[in-house]
Amino acid sequence: MEYRIEKDTMGEVKVPADKYWGAQTQRSKENFTIGGHLMPVEIIQAFAILKKAAARTNQELGVLPAEKADIIAQVCDEILAGKLDDQFPLVVWQTGSGTQSNMNVNEVVANRAHVLLGGKLLDDKKKIHPNDDVNKSQSSNDTFPTAMSIAAYKLVVEHTIPMVQKLRNTLQQKSEAFKEVVKIGRTHFMDATPLTLGQEFSGYVAQLDHGIKALQNTLAHLSELALGGTAVGTGLNAPKGYAELVAKKISEFAGHSFKTAPNKFESLAAHDAAVATSGALKGLAVSLMKIANDIRMLSSGPRSGIAEILIPENEPGSSIMPGKVNPTQVEALTMVCAQVIGNDAAITIGGMNGHFELNVFKPVIIFNLLMAARLIGDACDSFDKNCAIGIDPNYPVIEKNLENSLMLVTALNPHIGYENAAKIAKKAHKEGTSLRQAALSLNLLTNEQFDQWVIAKDMIGELK
Amino acid sequence: MEYRIEKDTMGEVKVPADKYWGAQTQRSKENFTIGGHLMPVEIIQAFAILKKAAARTNQELGVLPAEKADIIAQVCDEILAGKLDDQFPLVVWQTGSGTQSNMNVNEVVANRAHVLLGGKLLDDKKKIHPNDDVNKSQSSNDTFPTAMSIAAYKLVVEHTIPMVQKLRNTLQQKSEAFKEVVKIGRTHFMDATPLTLGQEFSGYVAQLDHGIKALQNTLAHLSELALGGTAVGTGLNAPKGYAELVAKKISEFAGHSFKTAPNKFESLAAHDAAVATSGALKGLAVSLMKIANDIRMLSSGPRSGIAEILIPENEPGSSIMPGKVNPTQVEALTMVCAQVIGNDAAITIGGMNGHFELNVFKPVIIFNLLMAARLIGDACDSFDKNCAIGIDPNYPVIEKNLENSLMLVTALNPHIGYENAAKIAKKAHKEGTSLRQAALSLNLLTNEQFDQWVIAKDMIGELK
Amino acid sequence: MEYRIEKDTMGEVKVPADKYWGAQTQRSKENFTIGGHLMPVEIIQAFAILKKAAARTNQELGVLPAEKADIIAQVCDEILAGKLDDQFPLVVWQTGSGTQSNMNVNEVVANRAHVLLGGKLLDDKKKIHPNDDVNKSQSSNDTFPTAMSIAAYKLVVEHTIPMVQKLRNTLQQKSEAFKEVVKIGRTHFMDATPLTLGQEFSGYVAQLDHGIKALQNTLAHLSELALGGTAVGTGLNAPKGYAELVAKKISEFAGHSFKTAPNKFESLAAHDAAVATSGALKGLAVSLMKIANDIRMLSSGPRSGIAEILIPENEPGSSIMPGKVNPTQVEALTMVCAQVIGNDAAITIGGMNGHFELNVFKPVIIFNLLMAARLIGDACDSFDKNCAIGIDPNYPVIEKNLENSLMLVTALNPHIGYENAAKIAKKAHKEGTSLRQAALSLNLLTNEQFDQWVIAKDMIGELK
Amino acid sequence: MEYRIEKDTMGEVKVPADKYWGAQTQRSKENFTIGGHLMPVEIIQAFAILKKAAARTNQELGVLPAEKADIIAQVCDEILAGKLDDQFPLVVWQTGSGTQSNMNVNEVVANRAHVLLGGKLLDDKKKIHPNDDVNKSQSSNDTFPTAMSIAAYKLVVEHTIPMVQKLRNTLQQKSEAFKEVVKIGRTHFMDATPLTLGQEFSGYVAQLDHGIKALQNTLAHLSELALGGTAVGTGLNAPKGYAELVAKKISEFAGHSFKTAPNKFESLAAHDAAVATSGALKGLAVSLMKIANDIRMLSSGPRSGIAEILIPENEPGSSIMPGKVNPTQVEALTMVCAQVIGNDAAITIGGMNGHFELNVFKPVIIFNLLMAARLIGDACDSFDKNCAIGIDPNYPVIEKNLENSLMLVTALNPHIGYENAAKIAKKAHKEGTSLRQAALSLNLLTNEQFDQWVIAKDMIGELK
Repeated sequence: MEYRIEKDTMGEVKVPADKYWGAQTQRSKENFTIGGHLMPVEIIQAFAILKKAAARTNQELGVLPAEKADIIAQVCDEILAGKLDDQFPLVVWQTGSGTQSNMNVNEVVANRAHVLLGGKLLDDKKKIHPNDDVNKSQSSNDTFPTAMSIAAYKLVVEHTIPMVQKLRNTLQQKSEAFKEVVKIGRTHFMDATPLTLGQEFSGYVAQLDHGIKALQNTLAHLSELALGGTAVGTGLNAPKGYAELVAKKISEFAGHSFKTAPNKFESLAAHDAAVATSGALKGLAVSLMKIANDIRMLSSGPRSGIAEILIPENEPGSSIMPGKVNPTQVEALTMVCAQVIGNDAAITIGGMNGHFELNVFKPVIIFNLLMAARLIGDACDSFDKNCAIGIDPNYPVIEKNLENSLMLVTALNPHIGYENAAKIAKKAHKEGTSLRQAALSLNLLTNEQFDQWVIAKDMIGELK
Repeated sequence: MEYRIEKDTMGEVKVPADKYWGAQTQRSKENFTIGGHLMPVEIIQAFAILKKAAARTNQELGVLPAEKADIIAQVCDEILAGKLDDQFPLVVWQTGSGTQSNMNVNEVVANRAHVLLGGKLLDDKKKIHPNDDVNKSQSSNDTFPTAMSIAAYKLVVEHTIPMVQKLRNTLQQKSEAFKEVVKIGRTHFMDATPLTLGQEFSGYVAQLDHGIKALQNTLAHLSELALGGTAVGTGLNAPKGYAELVAKKISEFAGHSFKTAPNKFESLAAHDAAVATSGALKGLAVSLMKIANDIRMLSSGPRSGIAEILIPENEPGSSIMPGKVNPTQVEALTMVCAQVIGNDAAITIGGMNGHFELNVFKPVIIFNLLMAARLIGDACDSFDKNCAIGIDPNYPVIEKNLENSLMLVTALNPHIGYENAAKIAKKAHKEGTSLRQAALSLNLLTNEQFDQWVIAKDMIGELK
Repeated sequence: MEYRIEKDTMGEVKVPADKYWGAQTQRSKENFTIGGHLMPVEIIQAFAILKKAAARTNQELGVLPAEKADIIAQVCDEILAGKLDDQFPLVVWQTGSGTQSNMNVNEVVANRAHVLLGGKLLDDKKKIHPNDDVNKSQSSNDTFPTAMSIAAYKLVVEHTIPMVQKLRNTLQQKSEAFKEVVKIGRTHFMDATPLTLGQEFSGYVAQLDHGIKALQNTLAHLSELALGGTAVGTGLNAPKGYAELVAKKISEFAGHSFKTAPNKFESLAAHDAAVATSGALKGLAVSLMKIANDIRMLSSGPRSGIAEILIPENEPGSSIMPGKVNPTQVEALTMVCAQVIGNDAAITIGGMNGHFELNVFKPVIIFNLLMAARLIGDACDSFDKNCAIGIDPNYPVIEKNLENSLMLVTALNPHIGYENAAKIAKKAHKEGTSLRQAALSLNLLTNEQFDQWVIAKDMIGELK
Repeated sequence: MEYRIEKDTMGEVKVPADKYWGAQTQRSKENFTIGGHLMPVEIIQAFAILKKAAARTNQELGVLPAEKADIIAQVCDEILAGKLDDQFPLVVWQTGSGTQSNMNVNEVVANRAHVLLGGKLLDDKKKIHPNDDVNKSQSSNDTFPTAMSIAAYKLVVEHTIPMVQKLRNTLQQKSEAFKEVVKIGRTHFMDATPLTLGQEFSGYVAQLDHGIKALQNTLAHLSELALGGTAVGTGLNAPKGYAELVAKKISEFAGHSFKTAPNKFESLAAHDAAVATSGALKGLAVSLMKIANDIRMLSSGPRSGIAEILIPENEPGSSIMPGKVNPTQVEALTMVCAQVIGNDAAITIGGMNGHFELNVFKPVIIFNLLMAARLIGDACDSFDKNCAIGIDPNYPVIEKNLENSLMLVTALNPHIGYENAAKIAKKAHKEGTSLRQAALSLNLLTNEQFDQWVIAKDMIGELK
């Protein structure tokens, strides 16, 4: 590979000749050969929005010439268009402030701008300076958390919530479609009084409705931008009015409504907003685990399971057992739930470990937050279109189970009391008979009373 | 000990002669000798509210005679007054629906009512039946989660939030009192540009403000009551209008605004509300860990630490090192934070493991949720009154540190550029001199310019 | 209440007149009104062993007169006999070094000794000094972690491991008893090729065997005692030979083989041993969750579940559904598993937060570790005697399921290939017929070949 | 893109014309567009070892012709040489048994073998069948966990342990080099009695020694291979002697000593070995967090921190504060620790959720386990070579701090008692004087006694 020499305040470094990045990026690349997880592309894209907004704000506030702002904005647009994707080689496991990724962006923008302005990478003096121009009125300490906010907010709003909502809507349709499918209920994994399959699914819908709401509740905090706080939150070296204006421009460029954080010290030193959003994603994972497990178990069989619903067969299930079909979408979804709970644990550790004016677990926090938000969205989408949408009741099994149920006896409580009802159920269970047979042989009610009182479809409450 | 014989649907059981509980309580007591953690008293109290509300609702809807409702209400009032505290011997580690604690309450209320009505515990037939009267229109499956909601909501609203708020207010007062105490900032645990001690504390206030808000955001879901769903959510055996009316009565008796859950299936089968509230408490733990750690480190010393603040000396710190004073309130608080994160992990596991119509991790969930809510409240109160309120700046150290700082050089960026400023800082650091000395000897600016540009108190932004 | 005045290096304090504790205990009691969780009795007992061993070691090394050692030992024996249980009022949420509980023990021993020697609590000068005598050659920093080691080691070895082993032995007996009960297997919760119920249970035995081994592997580290390190690990103020001798005496008094930690700095500053033991308990929780869930699901029914095993009926299952029997022991056990995972999370947070020469999350760590060790032991015992021991196969269901299974088709792979076998299974599934019918109608094999090749009891490998 | 048509038991699928994979891989690729995390290359490599070993075992046991075994082995060697890296497009978030990745390998091996044998991908009939030949005597259910064992064992033994050991050795060298550097100790983050810097580092060495041992203790379980269990653990369709022989061959090809699992039911249905190894990695993360935090804090400054050690300056620390140098390697390492704790949480959830004969959280478990093992190894290596190795004492600060310390007073306990010593310390602290001044003015000892008794270097115990 060919190299050129780049310099920073610590001295010279050899950089690949064809790359726009500079000395600091190269140092980080060499000093942190850990894990190989690249800084998420959502962060790079968020930085492009941010740097463009900063340049335009600096221009408007008179601290950056229009030509410089123009060219910086132009490079940012190239980044947003994905044209410079191979210019961001740094990994998550770097300095905890993300300084090196901020400098990576600063260097790439500066050098690319210099080239666009007709310069050469080998020029000793560049027309755009990574710190003095691209990073003007900024610090890593306020840009990186701002990029975190932009990236996470966008992903949650544009992807996670819509995909959860899509699955929720499918489940809602199922709930309506299955409104009158009376089936046995199960509590403690044991037979219980009946309900409809639609009611069962309505519980899932309610879970996701609450989960989406909880996630939305975290957005206000997440939309607070640190930018304008610079090094420690005081805004040193940023012009008056900068914080508010740059938030406005970011909102414009990002297409979402962000606001400048009312307290910049909190925005740099803590990531409670990320912790809260992650907590809500964990909440969704908990809900989805319950829902997916139910569907796994309801569809179990085909012959020796519960088998009350049928799910789509998408692929051969076994490399050894021919003809086997498995709830693979359930499995992918529940694995995602496990992962998201792990992501939340990592974020919790990172979030609690801020010191003084800065939390230096920023990259690990955003890496896990974006992973969780992406996975929940993707998995809901996949589960929705490849599984949920194709769920059907398995009527013969549902009917057989309902018919056999001993828990219909509960309907007798108001008529003959809990203890007499228990006698009937116990006798039927012990002798393997029907409730009716047991009831009659105990002389606790007449055949007609049984007909009148024990009606499964009357035991399911009012359907809404 | 003397015993009497009690019966349930499974047969006879020996019960201590002087206790009001019956056969099912006794069975649970004997079958679950695990751990010794009693069902939290907040749950027993919530059950008293609930049983009273249920009796009055049943009365009003015409399914329970007024005399029965009266006497049930009277016993519930005794429970609320703490007069029957020794009648609830069951532990958390019982059936996962809490059925046995529900029956414990049913049995105690029924038997105590019977005695109040002039009966004897040895009477074969009791005037009030635990299932048919006390538990009328109810199931463990809807009463236990309702008791969870009542207990957790009350504790969070009456204790946790006010105590966090109290600490927040103290920190806010400190933030104002320290508004003009300029000190060195620290990022990466390294010296950085200055800010005021008040600004530093304002970040803590912002953290707690957000944390309280996040906790409040979970209350709407937590206030949804399962009662009326009975066995599986359908409301079987509950009279029409029961759910809404009982929620109204519970609100009245509890002094808080509860509402009947719009979807009872979710309320029985999932505890996402508890998961969310726990998540918010975990978020507060994360915030408090950061705040407490800062105070621990800022007060470290007395001679070889950071020592920029002074905290109250409450007790001798060491059994071997005479005269040592330690940040013991910080330690209690941060231990509580660790615990609350553990509580959240337990709740997360419990929350995800519902099956079909019932989540049977109810006791472990509420045990951990109440523990977390109690601990956060107690620890904030203790930390507030025994530590935060007495925090003072250690002016001599603050001033010395500020004076020595190399990071004031940042103020020169706009004047001489980042790279020249770096040269000054590095030279001063290497040679152990002041910034001024280094700047002058590098001929990068004049003495007058230094005076004009490097002014710590001008580096802290606008104070609000 | 009546009071007396006690003093420490900070001044005077009012202490209940009838209590042996002194000023420092009282200060802690007043300054830490948090949560109400008393320091676990196992820690108090461990301290009694430790203080006695320390006194005898000091005596033997010539730094404490025999009379003083004698009386200290006598009080320690009283503590071990449970005679002074009401003298230890401090909670877990105190100073993170446990200094206050160490001083509580020092004060109680000193004052009780003084009284035993004929003095009065009101005497200004006591015959035994809490620091200079009882705490001689010790610091909270080495005594508290030593008490942690003693308490946790004893509980794990005397309770946790034997109880897990007991359950393991029951499962092993079941595995042998069910050795030839051929049943359908399930993978992905779906019907799979057969195995015996004994084989299924043998997997549980293997899990617990590995789990016990993993727990035992942590004991060596846990048996390392910090005592002798005093304040920071250097052993300041402890006589030569003290650490080794005191470990020997503790081993003698505790009845287990402890050793002095080869590196005292690690023992004070970190609790990696506790983290590792907790990790092994968490591993057991993971195993037990799997085992218990299987038993929950295998016993589900009675009519509409899997119902391949029968478990004991211990109590009425429902307050509304008469005759319901639930897997309550499974539920208690799985709730304990959730708790233990939460305990581990708290310990992990505590364990990682040591600073310099001391970890000050000691009380929260040991509180959670003892809780987990106790719960796992208790729950295994309860589950064993109230559930596992009574598990029986439900032969009719097992046979019916096996007969219906489509996955017996797997036996045909070596004869007709995976793809042809799949055709048979799919056809039978689609048409609701038996494998034999489908196979014959596809002309893929003869009736005789089917008889010869598809034999469930030949599909279960060699039974050991 | 050009396509060809592939078939499986469910029908036809379009596959990219130039890829070796078949219908099942393609179905998975299309059905699981989740997250984009490819199945780790270590798993693919482990599969190559496994498939080769299986083929050779099948050959030796007479169920696979030598020609077929030869060509299968040849393709496996190509995979091991990295020549087919672009043939494994499946993601982690697929079926929870990893069936689809097993089939991916089966298909690629079969089709590539067919081509090597002169066939074409478009041939309707292939010379090697993915199920009947490549997967012979295997199931996904035993191959995937076997690949997990191989991959994790290799990574831990070849990378994680050596890298932790390397860091441990550097810290050991530092401990020796700093053996006589007496410095102030700190407990509760407060000044305490002295120790040497070497002693402080010796604690870190002890932590890592214990951590490595704990990790090694998990290897025996991890080395147990599921292979031979086939579909549910019974070994259906595998020839006699297969399990033992294939384990021998895997050991040979992998270069490590594996053994066949004594209980295959456990190996398929649970991943307790992975949970245990992850637990040990989490333990290391806890230790490394403590060590790294100490180094972060000891090196804090340069002027207003603790600054008792100097660490290498590897890159400019700030984009706004010129001349700032940060503990970036500490930050990367502690972020890795947070991640590994998150990985453990995900593995814990996955590990507990096995059902009956199969745990279907296999991919998420191994994804997290390999990530953790890789990160711990990489981060220790990076921290070692870029930071630890360059740590030096900052002598002037160390000496100044030691001199100022009030805790040297502890040395007076044996001479004048704890309470008098406390008076001296408190007076000196209050008045800002030296201990000597305070001691003399209190007339508690003479100048000569002070000289004789208070000698920091005599307070550090015996150096080993």
